[in-house]
Parts: sequence; structure tokens; C-alpha cells
Amino acid sequence: MRERAGAARVARLATITPGGRPHAVPVCFVLVGETAYTAVDGKPKSTRALQRLANVRAHPDAALLIDQYDDDWTVVWWVRIDARGRVLEPGVEHDRAIAALCDKYEQYRHDPPAGPVIALDVVRWKAWP
Amino acid sequence: MRERAGAARVARLATITPGGRPHAVPVCFVLVGETAYTAVDGKPKSTRALQRLANVRAHPDAALLIDQYDDDWTVVWWVRIDARGRVLEPGVEHDRAIAALCDKYEQYRHDPPAGPVIALDVVRWKAWP
Repeated sequence: MRERAGAARVARLATITPGGRPHAVPVCFVLVGETAYTAVDGKPKSTRALQRLANVRAHPDAALLIDQYDDDWTVVWWVRIDARGRVLEPGVEHDRAIAALCDKYEQYRHDPPAGPVIALDVVRWKAWP
Repeated sequence: MRERAGAARVARLATITPGGRPHAVPVCFVLVGETAYTAVDGKPKSTRALQRLANVRAHPDAALLIDQYDDDWTVVWWVRIDARGRVLEPGVEHDRAIAALCDKYEQYRHDPPAGPVIALDVVRWKAWP
């Protein structure tokens, strides 16, 4: 479960908007111990004041879903991390998160993410099947 | 946007639990006009009284995320459908949904989903980039 989650290149982050709606977005992430980090990066976006940041600030509960789909349904699986989210301020943990993301994603090594980082502290692991 | 969403084999369904936590799960689905349908199918599960059903009954707001990840970040995209969910009772719409799912997924033709169907009525389309 942890190996699958850690090795995945993409996850889907589910949060709740300040208005109480579910929200979901694909994210790059890195798992460090019991915390997953995801950054606002250089992929084109309308703004760095992203919905996901407002969501985590208003409702820290988040879910990070990692799954593999295949038309052969005997090999599909998912891992879900229920977590508490924190938007990191500049500082030691922020720098460590960026370093871990750069270590995992070659793309980040050329262009480290300059925006805010969300830390997702694991509350519960769930796996299927 | 609609073509990409309609052609995708998998989506991630984000809902809110009765207790107010975000929840996410990968789903097979079919888009029929302005409604997406997803069924509780024969893939092994602990129960058919699934969390997603309880969630939609308690909080009809849902988000269906369709995306393509690639390590070439110039080709990634996502489409998100903000929707209102309904758990269908047996009847005409339920049967039409099952037929549409069987039409899209060959796997369902051999073994039509026998469990409840969730209808997701589109409230808003959002696409990135």
C-alpha cells in the first residue's frame, strides 16, 4: 500500500470548498513518512491563489487518492489517504518538501515549484481491494 | 472538454461523508447528455452499502474529475464536472443508465452491474488548462 502510494506519479486531491462543495484536482506529490506534500508549481494556472489552498485553510480535512485503472479489472487498485492539510509558510519544512519533490520529479529539478506547499498529515490509510 | 470526458475510461468521484469529510474513489462512468452515471458493480467490495451512496444521500453535491497524467507536463489536462448526485431507484432511468454503461464498457456486457446507480446531474463544467 505504501509502496504503491509512494511510487505513484499522480494522485487526486479531494477537499471541501469554503462553501461546502467537494472539490478534486490531480496533483503531483511526494510521501515523506506520514506526510504527503504537494506544491503549486509552474504548470500553467490562472493564479497561484488556488482553490485548493482556500479549501485546506477553510476545511483541513482532505483525501488523497492514488489508483491504477486498467481495462483488465482484475488488476485495478486504489489507496486512499485521509489526511489533515496544512498550507506551509516559508521555512524548514517547506524547504524539505520542495527538496523531496525535486528528488522525486526530474521536472521539478529543472524548475522547482515556487508556489505554496500543502502538507497532508496522514490520519488513516485505506486500500482496495 | 466533453469529448475528453466522455471518452475517458475512469474518473474520480469526490463526495462528502455524512460526517463532513472529503471522500474520493475511482469510478467507471458514462456521460449521457448532462448526466453522468456510475454503478456499483461486480468488482470485489466489502459491501454494496457503499460509502459513496451514503455520501450522496447525505450531501448531493459531488465532483467528477477526469484527467490525463503524463510525465510530459505539456500534455496533461483535466475536466471537472461539479454535479448534484442522486441514487437511482429501480426504474426507467436506472435501466437506461445500465444500458449506457454496458454500451461503453465491454466488461459490463458480460456481467451488468447489479448494484445501485448514482446519477450525477451536471451543474458546472470546468476544464484545465
